[in-house]
Amino acid sequence: MQTELLIHANWMLPVDSRDSTLEHHSIAVDRGRIAAVLPRAEAETQIQAAQTVELPGHVLIPGLVNAHTHSPMTLLRGLADDLPLMTWLHEHIWPAEGRWVDTEFVADGTRLAALEMLRGGVTCFNDMYFYPEVTARVAAEAGMRVLAGMIVVDFPTRYAETADEYLHRGLELHDQYREHTLVRPAFAPHSPYAVSDAPLERVRTLADELEVPIHIHLHETRDEIQQSLRDHGQRPLARLDRMGMLGPQLVAIHMTQLEDAEIERLASTGSHVVHCPESNLKLASGFCPVARLLEAGVNVALGTDGAASNNDLDLLAEMRTAALLAKGVAGSASAVPATAALRMATLNGARALGLDDEIGSLEQGKAADIVALDLGSHSHQPLYNVCSQLVYTAASHRVSQVWVHGRQVIRDSHPLTLDEPGVIAAARDWQQRIRPAGESG
Amino acid sequence: MQTELLIHANWMLPVDSRDSTLEHHSIAVDRGRIAAVLPRAEAETQIQAAQTVELPGHVLIPGLVNAHTHSPMTLLRGLADDLPLMTWLHEHIWPAEGRWVDTEFVADGTRLAALEMLRGGVTCFNDMYFYPEVTARVAAEAGMRVLAGMIVVDFPTRYAETADEYLHRGLELHDQYREHTLVRPAFAPHSPYAVSDAPLERVRTLADELEVPIHIHLHETRDEIQQSLRDHGQRPLARLDRMGMLGPQLVAIHMTQLEDAEIERLASTGSHVVHCPESNLKLASGFCPVARLLEAGVNVALGTDGAASNNDLDLLAEMRTAALLAKGVAGSASAVPATAALRMATLNGARALGLDDEIGSLEQGKAADIVALDLGSHSHQPLYNVCSQLVYTAASHRVSQVWVHGRQVIRDSHPLTLDEPGVIAAARDWQQRIRPAGESG
Repeated sequence: MQTELLIHANWMLPVDSRDSTLEHHSIAVDRGRIAAVLPRAEAETQIQAAQTVELPGHVLIPGLVNAHTHSPMTLLRGLADDLPLMTWLHEHIWPAEGRWVDTEFVADGTRLAALEMLRGGVTCFNDMYFYPEVTARVAAEAGMRVLAGMIVVDFPTRYAETADEYLHRGLELHDQYREHTLVRPAFAPHSPYAVSDAPLERVRTLADELEVPIHIHLHETRDEIQQSLRDHGQRPLARLDRMGMLGPQLVAIHMTQLEDAEIERLASTGSHVVHCPESNLKLASGFCPVARLLEAGVNVALGTDGAASNNDLDLLAEMRTAALLAKGVAGSASAVPATAALRMATLNGARALGLDDEIGSLEQGKAADIVALDLGSHSHQPLYNVCSQLVYTAASHRVSQVWVHGRQVIRDSHPLTLDEPGVIAAARDWQQRIRPAGESG
Repeated sequence: MQTELLIHANWMLPVDSRDSTLEHHSIAVDRGRIAAVLPRAEAETQIQAAQTVELPGHVLIPGLVNAHTHSPMTLLRGLADDLPLMTWLHEHIWPAEGRWVDTEFVADGTRLAALEMLRGGVTCFNDMYFYPEVTARVAAEAGMRVLAGMIVVDFPTRYAETADEYLHRGLELHDQYREHTLVRPAFAPHSPYAVSDAPLERVRTLADELEVPIHIHLHETRDEIQQSLRDHGQRPLARLDRMGMLGPQLVAIHMTQLEDAEIERLASTGSHVVHCPESNLKLASGFCPVARLLEAGVNVALGTDGAASNNDLDLLAEMRTAALLAKGVAGSASAVPATAALRMATLNGARALGLDDEIGSLEQGKAADIVALDLGSHSHQPLYNVCSQLVYTAASHRVSQVWVHGRQVIRDSHPLTLDEPGVIAAARDWQQRIRPAGESG
């Protein structure tokens, strides 16, 4: 077989149905897709490749899927840490956003986010922010896969005045990217507390019609539940259920507050949950019962949330935190083992975003979204179990090569599609504008 | 003033009483000690240094103190993950230790640990393992500060047969290192469940006499409490209290199970707690109430625990986990802010180990244990708050320079006192002996 590219590595974690660890296997890539996964010895005789990449000491994994982030918020990274949620939002984040967020902010912030994510092995992200058409354009230029969130909130911003206008701008984005390889639209009504019934029902109707996911913050904090009980006489999940929003299109972010019956309902409707452990810890939002959700059969993916509440977009580290925290929360050291954590960060993310036919595992026919990590350093020795080592000694700076849809975007840890010094310089410019060095302690 | 070394950096977090962030300051080092900390402009006129080091874009922090580890266990890193504690111990760790642990194992394991710790900015560690005299020797050769634990358990191992023999071997180590700059001995009775009253009382007497700390696992799990209630009619802390072991010499590791009165008792006796958040999560041991301990005035330090239950010795990452987890556990986003987390990883560790006159902060007269981290990369931009960025976007691979007692041990991220390829090769040899690749899934 003739292919464009053949990659040889010591190990491969394809995230297949048996959680295999393959040794001395190779991946053949052609026209953006995985043409074959096969033992190296067979690859050497059967594949004639235009380009061959040798990765001794490396493991290949599927491109990571960051199932919830606000990528432009990288520009607010560390602006206001260690503060109660409402102080953080009302006194720092929202004022900064109100003053600074425009298309240039979104472009520069997305570029910084794309650089960090690609260098850390994230090849696809599910984004929610203003000016999603800018995020979509920048991600596509960086060669990265994105679900661009068609954001909806009740209140006016520079981006849009009314819920109708948000939806209108979102639908323009939907039309623009109808046939794009890397960009898919998703509805992104911010949360049940920021969007009233009428626009939520409109989102549900449009999402059915256009067959796109609905990306929404849900049950993030106890306060959110109490406010909903006061304002709507229902818990937020029940309110969405009443409007017919539960189902395989629902991508529910956070879900730290869950009763048994709600877990059952998520499972029976095929709704997805995105767990953001570091954000939940940092903002003291609560603990998502990940082991119970997985046990009930709910698809749980992983997200970093935005860099203002994390403070990085490092999904490898998030995977480790998720595996560790789930054990503490479940009171069981065997909860969310390494294989489950890797699955959450890859295939489960793809499923949540409706992309599991396309990405999330290294299997013939899928898009060639491939990440190589070097496991040769001192901190990975000895190496008894590859998946365990990947999850528990994960380090995003060990990502050396990344391909998205067959195109190499990171080579030897350097970006090929982004001007790294330029991206960093732009972030520093924003810092000077937003709060010059020295102004805070 | 004439000094041996002058270091210029953009920022310094000296961990002083005001949690200062110093900009454009310098440190002068002479004969192993910090001769001065002063603004760069003054340093340039007042200090004549034999060697000057320029670190643009870097932050200087005190050498990190890993207040609890079992360094030779790096050789068992990832051997048996995702298993319940008792299965992990009885079926994997103890059999492997029984079969393999000897002086060569301890030497090679400590070397791997020292490499990882120094490269990650840890300059001092509090160790508990068999053959502590080997750990002490290897650490001293690597130019690293160590509290070598004079281990005591009731049961026989290759290292010693009886509690008396453990103590005897420990006291030999104590005599050997009486005057050493880098090595200090500490008693390390493993835990209340592994050491009976008579040897514990002997430890207490000797610790008083020799004025050294007592390093002990304590209240790690709920099972430990229940077993103690069955066997001794008391919770472990009460049992130690009865034997007069509480006080400034007690370094209590883990402490996930704590009643209000116990927190009060720890505070009033000046006992120290070492929090090991990643180990506690991974083994599902429970949650240490860090914010409540700090509020009660208890000195809380940080430890990585051994690499078989973490799986790294990365104290920067541990600091981040501690800051995040404490917020979730306390239900408050302002619990354990970045400055408190850095303090736990430095000065609080020094205090717990009785070394706070010597190390733990960057202040004139203290030993020159200094770490420089590069904050120039994309993942640290923008940089609104240096301490926050250090804690929440910490990455041990950004440690570029490390000095211990004025001697440079890491230069441009490369070890000067350890043969990195040799250390890695030795770890791989042990892997081949312990469990050749391919034997497990």
